Amino acid sequence: MDIITKTLFVMELAEYEKVSDQVKIAQRDLEQDGFSKNPFFHGIIAEVPEHLKSKEDSCMYFFTGHTKVGYSLYFYTYSSWKGRAVYMEDLYVMPEFRGKGIGKALMSKVSQLGLAAGCTQLNFTVLDWNKSSLDFYLKQGCWDVTSDLGYHCMRCEGDALEHLAQGGL
Amino acid sequence: MDIITKTLFVMELAEYEKVSDQVKIAQRDLEQDGFSKNPFFHGIIAEVPEHLKSKEDSCMYFFTGHTKVGYSLYFYTYSSWKGRAVYMEDLYVMPEFRGKGIGKALMSKVSQLGLAAGCTQLNFTVLDWNKSSLDFYLKQGCWDVTSDLGYHCMRCEGDALEHLAQGGL
Repeated sequence: MDIITKTLFVMELAEYEKVSDQVKIAQRDLEQDGFSKNPFFHGIIAEVPEHLKSKEDSCMYFFTGHTKVGYSLYFYTYSSWKGRAVYMEDLYVMPEFRGKGIGKALMSKVSQLGLAAGCTQLNFTVLDWNKSSLDFYLKQGCWDVTSDLGYHCMRCEGDALEHLAQGGL
Repeated sequence: MDIITKTLFVMELAEYEKVSDQVKIAQRDLEQDGFSKNPFFHGIIAEVPEHLKSKEDSCMYFFTGHTKVGYSLYFYTYSSWKGRAVYMEDLYVMPEFRGKGIGKALMSKVSQLGLAAGCTQLNFTVLDWNKSSLDFYLKQGCWDVTSDLGYHCMRCEGDALEHLAQGGL
């Protein structure tokens, strides 16, 4: 996955999730964090096959000038009770290429890579309003940890994180 | 943090969270995953200072034979919008050493290490019934991502994960 493609996809996903104002990352950060010797994340990308791009009658919406049509960003996490897990941070397919199994193929590939790395869990989050995605995930045998296990996913950032690092309140 | 201590703490934390039957990990896994060249997790440990152990009048509950009294297990994750983050998977202090700021000191240290590594977020989960911990975290400026952002934390494991890796349903 090249950096420019990654940056464009990150912005598109943020727009889709209606939070593009929350994107605080630069292309330089992505380059440094994902493409160095010890990367903070990994990524896979979905591309349109060459033969589909050359046949006008095969699929008209492949003629958009895009060759890369989706991506997934993932990394490895750990449960001290269950061991290695893979976390799918992003799963995105461009609007004109949805409904063709590309998202499922990307998610399947992340699962394969996770299993091959010795993981026993695939974890990810989904937004409340995104009912179609939620239905898809439930159909795949995924379950909602929040509602089943009564977890609160907590976060600390900004001044609160700095204060905590200095000893906390 | 040595392996045997880590294994004992993992079991104690699971008992505290009332899910000790869910511990599926062996000492060998922890050794391989946390203490190899490219570890899947990192850990810090809280120890009782030597001078406190030798003074009977200073703190009677230090005479339990323990020198290691708590730990935190953490790893680095990634947000494609906000960059590097640190995830605190476990935070545990032995019952007889609670209420003395050891948990806060461990959490503060994880925050320091996260900030030093270029992270802008500290993430973790807390169980629904654990109101005292939830109150403590809220006091530190942490917030509940689940209720505020409407996230579902999803998981896929076992047969469903195998099926997904084979292409999904």
